[in-house]
Amino acid sequence: MSHDALAAANLIGLDWGSTSLRAFLIGPDGQVIATRDAARGASVLHDGEQYAGTLHEIAGDWLQARGDLPVLACGMVGSKHGWLEVPYADCPGGAAELATRLSQVPGQHVRIVPGMLCTADNGVPDVMRGEETQIVGALHVHPDLAAQSCIILPGTHSKWAAVQDAQVRGFATHMTGELFAVLRQHSVLGRLMPQQASVQDDAAFRQGIEAARADGTLSLNHQLFAVRTLGLTGKLAESSLADYLSGLLIGHELCAGLTWRASKGLDRAPLALIGEPSLCRRYAQALEQYGQRAHQLSNTAPTGLWQLARSAGLLNPAQS
Amino acid sequence: MSHDALAAANLIGLDWGSTSLRAFLIGPDGQVIATRDAARGASVLHDGEQYAGTLHEIAGDWLQARGDLPVLACGMVGSKHGWLEVPYADCPGGAAELATRLSQVPGQHVRIVPGMLCTADNGVPDVMRGEETQIVGALHVHPDLAAQSCIILPGTHSKWAAVQDAQVRGFATHMTGELFAVLRQHSVLGRLMPQQASVQDDAAFRQGIEAARADGTLSLNHQLFAVRTLGLTGKLAESSLADYLSGLLIGHELCAGLTWRASKGLDRAPLALIGEPSLCRRYAQALEQYGQRAHQLSNTAPTGLWQLARSAGLLNPAQS
Repeated sequence: MSHDALAAANLIGLDWGSTSLRAFLIGPDGQVIATRDAARGASVLHDGEQYAGTLHEIAGDWLQARGDLPVLACGMVGSKHGWLEVPYADCPGGAAELATRLSQVPGQHVRIVPGMLCTADNGVPDVMRGEETQIVGALHVHPDLAAQSCIILPGTHSKWAAVQDAQVRGFATHMTGELFAVLRQHSVLGRLMPQQASVQDDAAFRQGIEAARADGTLSLNHQLFAVRTLGLTGKLAESSLADYLSGLLIGHELCAGLTWRASKGLDRAPLALIGEPSLCRRYAQALEQYGQRAHQLSNTAPTGLWQLARSAGLLNPAQS
Repeated sequence: MSHDALAAANLIGLDWGSTSLRAFLIGPDGQVIATRDAARGASVLHDGEQYAGTLHEIAGDWLQARGDLPVLACGMVGSKHGWLEVPYADCPGGAAELATRLSQVPGQHVRIVPGMLCTADNGVPDVMRGEETQIVGALHVHPDLAAQSCIILPGTHSKWAAVQDAQVRGFATHMTGELFAVLRQHSVLGRLMPQQASVQDDAAFRQGIEAARADGTLSLNHQLFAVRTLGLTGKLAESSLADYLSGLLIGHELCAGLTWRASKGLDRAPLALIGEPSLCRRYAQALEQYGQRAHQLSNTAPTGLWQLARSAGLLNPAQS
């Protein structure tokens, strides 16, 4: 990296989740100057010393050259078992509310974005950490989503967020990714599946989506058993069963998510997908089976971090 | 055991599932004279020698004293990875159809009941092994269920069976028990739960049932995450989370199962529960929240085995 690039930076952003850490050197217009990755998520770090050491490993040279740069982190780093527990921000809320609630790690030059907590109409709470920052970034990069939109963040715990007037009005988690992993690795459904990941079978994926869509009673608990019986009876090749399972789970998420979106009065608002590109492509493909089109956005976490840092007045005014 | 009791027997019945083997010495009216258990299910037995050895361990003295007794087994012992793969019987079918399709293990004095395979309206197959025999037993012990009934067999893979004119007309599996186990042991939902099983919290169980019942969109995938958030936010004690999870899963099974039962035209037919008594009590309690009463039957596998042996002409005519 050139000295000029480092000199131009005005923020170090950290997207610090359960399993990984991504560090971004961010410039005066929110543009990403450099990105670094490490498999050092909150699930393997146990005390402040380990967090500080990990930060030094991934960005020690940036910090040494530019000790004046603010550092802002989002994700599970702010959870109970993270570096510092940062209380959840309330929902509805947006960039302004999040920016006023950044917490500084004691004795460190690092601030952490709060997660967000919402309470559904039935009184059940839901939580996110990290996704709130990606949403802030998305609304900055795509201002057309700010008035009204439904943002889907697929993953281990997929989030569906209802946005109005640049605020998150509510959200709902679906355990799709984790269900796929535990059912594949630990249930009878994984037994017939080949150990090695094989070529993706899009037809089997679409078949799973369609089975979920066609099921009036939405009985996931029952439909899952078909992953076994279709394999047992030779109706689906063993190498296609994982794709069928993935389709069933994502299909059930979409059925429930689209109903939820309508209940929020957003059935005509644009849909956007944020996340790992190949997973977002699968979701977009599945949404097409429901007659829905979705914008696929690239990683919006660095923009969100930059936007929150700016709102909080952390950036050098001359540069921002 | 007295010599008289052994002399009176006319069948050795084996309920041989994935995880356990139960052996019954059965008398001339189908009554159970003696029961023995062993944790030697099909999942730990790998060849015919091991099956034969296990049978000898559990019932060698019975076989030696009464070499004339027929031996009839049901359950996973007849699966692909069992002692002998016995092809599934078709559905609809009842005792008569099953009895004509018993298979004898080559070189052994043992016959195995076929499982049953049905195909749902959407073309997806479903299977059972062992439950068909329990249903045959139930219809024999409670003839009032034979005309029309819906029989629920809760467990790792719960089965709902539609019965008409003493035949199983269709059935559906729900993975409730296995989902509970894998989510508790391998997912984020188990993390807050105490390792040790504690006193059962019936209120949390009912709360889970009610959450499933009240959820119009039946989104299990979403609702599961509440097991984490209710714990995280202190709205449910950590020791109550497993009961809440159990209630959610059983509630989703009941929602889907009762809808399925209605689709079979059986919404006014009697409901019966067969299985482990404490689990059946939980299901009965949950069904009450849905305004439904269910008969709770004791283990009907030995009666079913005896009934099938009799239909197949295996029993000594003088005794049966």
